[in-house]
Amino acid sequence: MCSAAVSVCSQPAAYLILKYDMQPHYKMKKLTDREKFMKEAIRQAVKASAIGEVPIGCVIVYDGRIIGRGYNRRMTDRTALAHAEITAIRKANKVIGDWRLDDCEMYVTLEPCQMCAGAIVQSRIRNVYIGAMNPKAGCAGSILDLLREERFNHQCIVETGLMEERCSELLKEFFVNLRTNQKNKKTEAGT
Amino acid sequence: MCSAAVSVCSQPAAYLILKYDMQPHYKMKKLTDREKFMKEAIRQAVKASAIGEVPIGCVIVYDGRIIGRGYNRRMTDRTALAHAEITAIRKANKVIGDWRLDDCEMYVTLEPCQMCAGAIVQSRIRNVYIGAMNPKAGCAGSILDLLREERFNHQCIVETGLMEERCSELLKEFFVNLRTNQKNKKTEAGT
Repeated sequence: MCSAAVSVCSQPAAYLILKYDMQPHYKMKKLTDREKFMKEAIRQAVKASAIGEVPIGCVIVYDGRIIGRGYNRRMTDRTALAHAEITAIRKANKVIGDWRLDDCEMYVTLEPCQMCAGAIVQSRIRNVYIGAMNPKAGCAGSILDLLREERFNHQCIVETGLMEERCSELLKEFFVNLRTNQKNKKTEAGT
Repeated sequence: MCSAAVSVCSQPAAYLILKYDMQPHYKMKKLTDREKFMKEAIRQAVKASAIGEVPIGCVIVYDGRIIGRGYNRRMTDRTALAHAEITAIRKANKVIGDWRLDDCEMYVTLEPCQMCAGAIVQSRIRNVYIGAMNPKAGCAGSILDLLREERFNHQCIVETGLMEERCSELLKEFFVNLRTNQKNKKTEAGT
């Protein structure tokens, strides 16, 4: 999945964000505050896609204001610590000036992995809004539920399925492009 | 626990490290390679203690050489991401130049939390050597066992109890000092 992903997308982030913003259901209905924040998380995910990374984006909100943004840069930064949620938490910590993010909300396009779910609990984030679920590796209800594990000293309030269709669509599109590119490369190599 | 911890220790790290290095059983027997690496993790933990942080230290080893060191700086850096293991992973990633740390070993003085255990799995670290266990919050066998969870796409080889006595002693000493300091402060405030 990962080593080939750099060549998936040659379109710049600005174009891809515009393309998503112009989709019909954004124009048709007025978005709720939560949807607006998830839309910003989706914009972050599109940035990841534009650099060939799996499109996952995240924002952290405090008192109605976004204080941390992040998108997946694992391959680009050459560290598994460059997941969207971790970057957003680091930025939010700087704004709040504390390791505790008690009164914050996180909006993330894909169900967090074990590391990110752990970081959310360690940072004591209050609410977590998730777009698409990740049945193979998610740790907010799929494989495990670290966000609501009663034996930890913090549990989050979790809401799943927020703008799920858009979040899933972004991932599907990325992997379809990835497979097409890999197929084309094999064909080229064979000729 | 945490807000008061800054004032726990006024002795410089160099003195504390020397104090631990001079203890009888270090001088009495020849250390194995694994013990030498854990000893370095303990030195890192002592650095945390010297700045009033809970003493947890970590090193990452590749091909017999330490490529990443870290100690707990959660309060100092004002982020829950400043756990010893996370810092060591970030440094090791820089040395290896890859997010994958497949052939690396981690030595950590205290059983990792859910976030750090997750980061270890995400970074695909092969072996994890743990000093003391953490029955209340550990995720390498105590509360959960994220390092050997078969539903994840990576499992670590885990060994616990390496120089356990020294690792536990360091923590106990820290919390005894913390309680004494808190008691003294209350007495001073009352007089």
